[in-house]
Amino acid sequence: VGITAGVIGHTGYAGQELINILKRHSGVEPMILEAPRGGTPSKTSRTSASKALQQARQSLAQPGDSSLRRRSLEEALAGGRPDVVFLATSVSISLDLAPRLVGAGSRVIDLSGAFRLPTAASFETWYGEAHTCPELLADAVYGLPEITRERVAGCRLLANPGCYATAANLALCPLQRSGLVDAETLVVCDAKSGVSGAGKEARAATHFCTVAENISLYGLMTHRHVPEILQTSGLTEDCFSFSTQLLPVRRGILATIYFRLRPGAQSADVGDVLHAAYADEPFVEVYPEGSFPTLTSVINTNRCHLGYAVVEPGRRTLIVAALDNLLKGAAGQAVQNLNIMLGLPETDGLLAR
Amino acid sequence: VGITAGVIGHTGYAGQELINILKRHSGVEPMILEAPRGGTPSKTSRTSASKALQQARQSLAQPGDSSLRRRSLEEALAGGRPDVVFLATSVSISLDLAPRLVGAGSRVIDLSGAFRLPTAASFETWYGEAHTCPELLADAVYGLPEITRERVAGCRLLANPGCYATAANLALCPLQRSGLVDAETLVVCDAKSGVSGAGKEARAATHFCTVAENISLYGLMTHRHVPEILQTSGLTEDCFSFSTQLLPVRRGILATIYFRLRPGAQSADVGDVLHAAYADEPFVEVYPEGSFPTLTSVINTNRCHLGYAVVEPGRRTLIVAALDNLLKGAAGQAVQNLNIMLGLPETDGLLAR
Amino acid sequence: VGITAGVIGHTGYAGQELINILKRHSGVEPMILEAPRGGTPSKTSRTSASKALQQARQSLAQPGDSSLRRRSLEEALAGGRPDVVFLATSVSISLDLAPRLVGAGSRVIDLSGAFRLPTAASFETWYGEAHTCPELLADAVYGLPEITRERVAGCRLLANPGCYATAANLALCPLQRSGLVDAETLVVCDAKSGVSGAGKEARAATHFCTVAENISLYGLMTHRHVPEILQTSGLTEDCFSFSTQLLPVRRGILATIYFRLRPGAQSADVGDVLHAAYADEPFVEVYPEGSFPTLTSVINTNRCHLGYAVVEPGRRTLIVAALDNLLKGAAGQAVQNLNIMLGLPETDGLLAR
Amino acid sequence: VGITAGVIGHTGYAGQELINILKRHSGVEPMILEAPRGGTPSKTSRTSASKALQQARQSLAQPGDSSLRRRSLEEALAGGRPDVVFLATSVSISLDLAPRLVGAGSRVIDLSGAFRLPTAASFETWYGEAHTCPELLADAVYGLPEITRERVAGCRLLANPGCYATAANLALCPLQRSGLVDAETLVVCDAKSGVSGAGKEARAATHFCTVAENISLYGLMTHRHVPEILQTSGLTEDCFSFSTQLLPVRRGILATIYFRLRPGAQSADVGDVLHAAYADEPFVEVYPEGSFPTLTSVINTNRCHLGYAVVEPGRRTLIVAALDNLLKGAAGQAVQNLNIMLGLPETDGLLAR
Repeated sequence: VGITAGVIGHTGYAGQELINILKRHSGVEPMILEAPRGGTPSKTSRTSASKALQQARQSLAQPGDSSLRRRSLEEALAGGRPDVVFLATSVSISLDLAPRLVGAGSRVIDLSGAFRLPTAASFETWYGEAHTCPELLADAVYGLPEITRERVAGCRLLANPGCYATAANLALCPLQRSGLVDAETLVVCDAKSGVSGAGKEARAATHFCTVAENISLYGLMTHRHVPEILQTSGLTEDCFSFSTQLLPVRRGILATIYFRLRPGAQSADVGDVLHAAYADEPFVEVYPEGSFPTLTSVINTNRCHLGYAVVEPGRRTLIVAALDNLLKGAAGQAVQNLNIMLGLPETDGLLAR
Repeated sequence: VGITAGVIGHTGYAGQELINILKRHSGVEPMILEAPRGGTPSKTSRTSASKALQQARQSLAQPGDSSLRRRSLEEALAGGRPDVVFLATSVSISLDLAPRLVGAGSRVIDLSGAFRLPTAASFETWYGEAHTCPELLADAVYGLPEITRERVAGCRLLANPGCYATAANLALCPLQRSGLVDAETLVVCDAKSGVSGAGKEARAATHFCTVAENISLYGLMTHRHVPEILQTSGLTEDCFSFSTQLLPVRRGILATIYFRLRPGAQSADVGDVLHAAYADEPFVEVYPEGSFPTLTSVINTNRCHLGYAVVEPGRRTLIVAALDNLLKGAAGQAVQNLNIMLGLPETDGLLAR
Repeated sequence: VGITAGVIGHTGYAGQELINILKRHSGVEPMILEAPRGGTPSKTSRTSASKALQQARQSLAQPGDSSLRRRSLEEALAGGRPDVVFLATSVSISLDLAPRLVGAGSRVIDLSGAFRLPTAASFETWYGEAHTCPELLADAVYGLPEITRERVAGCRLLANPGCYATAANLALCPLQRSGLVDAETLVVCDAKSGVSGAGKEARAATHFCTVAENISLYGLMTHRHVPEILQTSGLTEDCFSFSTQLLPVRRGILATIYFRLRPGAQSADVGDVLHAAYADEPFVEVYPEGSFPTLTSVINTNRCHLGYAVVEPGRRTLIVAALDNLLKGAAGQAVQNLNIMLGLPETDGLLAR
Repeated sequence: VGITAGVIGHTGYAGQELINILKRHSGVEPMILEAPRGGTPSKTSRTSASKALQQARQSLAQPGDSSLRRRSLEEALAGGRPDVVFLATSVSISLDLAPRLVGAGSRVIDLSGAFRLPTAASFETWYGEAHTCPELLADAVYGLPEITRERVAGCRLLANPGCYATAANLALCPLQRSGLVDAETLVVCDAKSGVSGAGKEARAATHFCTVAENISLYGLMTHRHVPEILQTSGLTEDCFSFSTQLLPVRRGILATIYFRLRPGAQSADVGDVLHAAYADEPFVEVYPEGSFPTLTSVINTNRCHLGYAVVEPGRRTLIVAALDNLLKGAAGQAVQNLNIMLGLPETDGLLAR
């Protein structure tokens, strides 16, 4: 247990899950890094003071749980910097803190979108603001382990993928790379997410009375996760339709993906490619053709479940990907990346439930 | 109030809504038709005995509400047949009763799928059973008022559309008929439904613990509503991908439809065509481009709300259709059809909320 | 339709319901009164700007609905004051506006708690702030029609009861007044409410992820509705235990009330008293002994349903009261009071669903 | 890992949780015992065949999980009987199997109500059927560890408490035993439960459309858990009012308990007694006065959280107890009892989440 791992932004949904996972991890000592006054790391950190007592109580409630160490960010940067720092923060906070942490010698795993796109220009296009540390982009590694694992090992700045992008890419990448997707026609990803994906901040859109007994389309084509899907899968924007819809559930993503099989491909290829791609993966499971995962089959796990079907006529293909947006879509995948970066067993901390 | 309207299958979800609407109708006298012993009209009629007291109480509870007349089916057929009979029954019960009712001189509005497809052969293909009264098919009119209104007036056997088909066709028909849909590529309809769409019968799939905090794909490509969509919109099966997903809500359908605009069409055409098609329709509303309906905007109404967007590059188009599966998707539309059949004001009974 | 009725605070949950009801009312012309800049009438008015488009659309969507007249408050006070003004506002706004409106000659129906308690001192005790217009208290009438109807007729300042108080008092008043309640022991009211009862403001407590799959106790003994219950029922504080719990539903209150029958009373008295008390009431229904209402039996109605049971040994009695917190618990009862005040049919506007 | 533990009724909700816990247990080897044809152990075992594939898949999905051993019940009884057998079965199945298992030398932990009451007569009174093996009752131990731990160690037939009784007794027993409860007046337990408490069988009462946006009272005074509460706490029936209400959540119990403090007792005694009673308990936490647990603070744990308040005048006292009905209310407590029976660490298997 020589590796120290700091978490900045521990009061948000993803940050809480990070803490929970790291406490179960056999090879890491977690600590909370608190930003100095006037520079709190995320919006939810500022508004969650009322939750402090409750969280303290829940920690105390867990028998045998020594409460976590807390350090100020400045202190951590000055003296004993953590070996790794997780940024469960907004894009702008990550842009501010990542250079300082990298400069101090910590490895950084960033859960925001600040380092997912390859250039400052593409960042500005999709995020609508300037990138303030473009010099870090060349070294940042996009960490979707099942697809980019070899680049994750040893990297010092890891961009943890978006939750929707993880679901879409795990479904699409093996098929697109095997040439099965007819991208001349249309590839559709109709994604549905639980409310925790919209963050912890109380807004009209997350009020119970708005969400319950309802579903609403809130992202469309221009969602920030689209470029992640395009760059990793190799699809082009003009063939890819994407929308996101808010479900009356707390957590989970279900992405339903439709495309036409490329001429010359066989229907059986879809299952063959998916099963081959994930045969040895601890966190991805491919169902038999015609069976489809639901949210409850993946919630509270770091797993992504995939179902598929190919229907004649028209070689119409459907893939369903399900995952927990806070785990395989955020904190769980971040720890999976940590394990790969540091050469630890990839499942450490991630199998407890 | 000279028109008598009988309801068979009044204990199911759609049947209950029918009763509620007909009680508000200014030109119709509703009555419940009860099937003889040993021939109860629907599955829920057999299992809902325990609800009788509750329903009786709710009727009594409504001040000024004289309880509905009840007659046995045989009695109604023998003597004073109702002018119109609604069949809120299963396909097999409808196949049994419709010929007898038509023979007795009643007009019939059938909410099952028994008379929606044009031939006995297509019925057998999609429903997996033989059609026992194919002679009625030639006279049956598919009643989606906004698209087929002129044929509804005066008809004697009306096939009320499926809930998914209503949503999909109201979105697709004007666009496809105007030549805006590129059917060479792929047209996708990702439909989501509340649990009442799965019927009142208690099954593992409708257990609260199965549905809550979950979403599951349960229909795919081969759903019985697909041929209704194809025949009414003019799309072909090989370009049309369709799936249905069960939401943790009680009622409502949201259908998200994706296609590519046909070469030569202008982006502005989509809005122009939709707005023109529905400008005078009392029950369809088209939102401004980029605004999308939610379930709560249509629940408890007979309305269908449509939103749309067209995005470059790729002329990718998205249409969202929302309606209440038990009203515009079933009982409400059935009464709308009744009004047209009999020359009554089309909105009678349907605006109370 | 000579009576004009203004609504201040039309964007809150209760205000929206008021508008909906008044549009159905046959004898009232509703209008929205908008407070001047810098003096918006309620918190939700300030934060709901983003909803304006949606609400406008919904109004437009309702066929045959001429949009409501809107006037500024100042204009309404200066020239043609409305005959009646509903204050769907916070206590402090009501304290500010009520004297001006009464002074201008309008009748006022206040949905806040500003005028429910008899003295400035009791108001300060329970609301923790000074009462700024105590001179109005003597004329204010507490309007729970089934209990205080005779005082409502003709009054000029009506205090509309709290939602919990309505449920508890309709259950308790007839029994307590008939001497059936053993107040020497303990009277318990365990009340549960949907989230709309907590208001439209987005807070951590109303975030979907906080509320779903949960229930939490949030009021206890000292809830502001307690003095309304005590003063109307005649119970004393030291025997009355009260708590409120937030349910994962959007609307509705279920109050479960426990007490011991007073020595000498007969078990059958409970049902006799309740049935006699409400035999002629259009909005209260008493179930047979041992049957209990649920939320869905009253939602979207102005009705209160009561169930009861008496169990030996110990003459333990249980009463369940269910109502819709926004209708019989707020806007519906306010219009019921309006009807009584003005001598209109008591159910006008209130039976549409 | 020499101890073998069989589970009968592994397809029900409690049985599934038992399997999950036992797989995490460091000192037990779990196995599934399958009843012979014609004698399946529980209702859900008979109706859950359709779940088999899904469950198989979920097992496979868990990396490193060797699938569980399965044996027929007859085989287990004949040859190598398990050291312990959990009966997650209905009362009648437990009455049938318990004598045979005890006779074969296995220890039995019964999750039904078959052995919770002290005499055949009391069983018949509350369960409405004859007790077929009254000779076992004398040796059966009621296993609520925090209250009856000393009797659990070494016992051979353990009656695992009911979920409601666990919540009520953990709240009431220390206070009643310390003489703080004024039982002359009225003690009220208003209990609310998630739908899994009503079992896995699909019924009208568990249909999503019945439960969502609703709450309903379904048990009253005569609930089978009442005698467990009375016998363990020492309260008498004539002072104890109890009701149960079905919440639109999947799991969890919140019990709100009201009583008056006995004359002579001090308000501070309540907290003192509760904190002292549970200071060393790993699975019970007492909150500071005025703070109350919610369902989400205990779901997926074996913990019971208690909150309390005492209010003057009237010395009215309120206790809130929250637990997960399937864990501390069933399977978790059963394993806690197993650990005590066999002298294993009491928390083994029960802290993973």
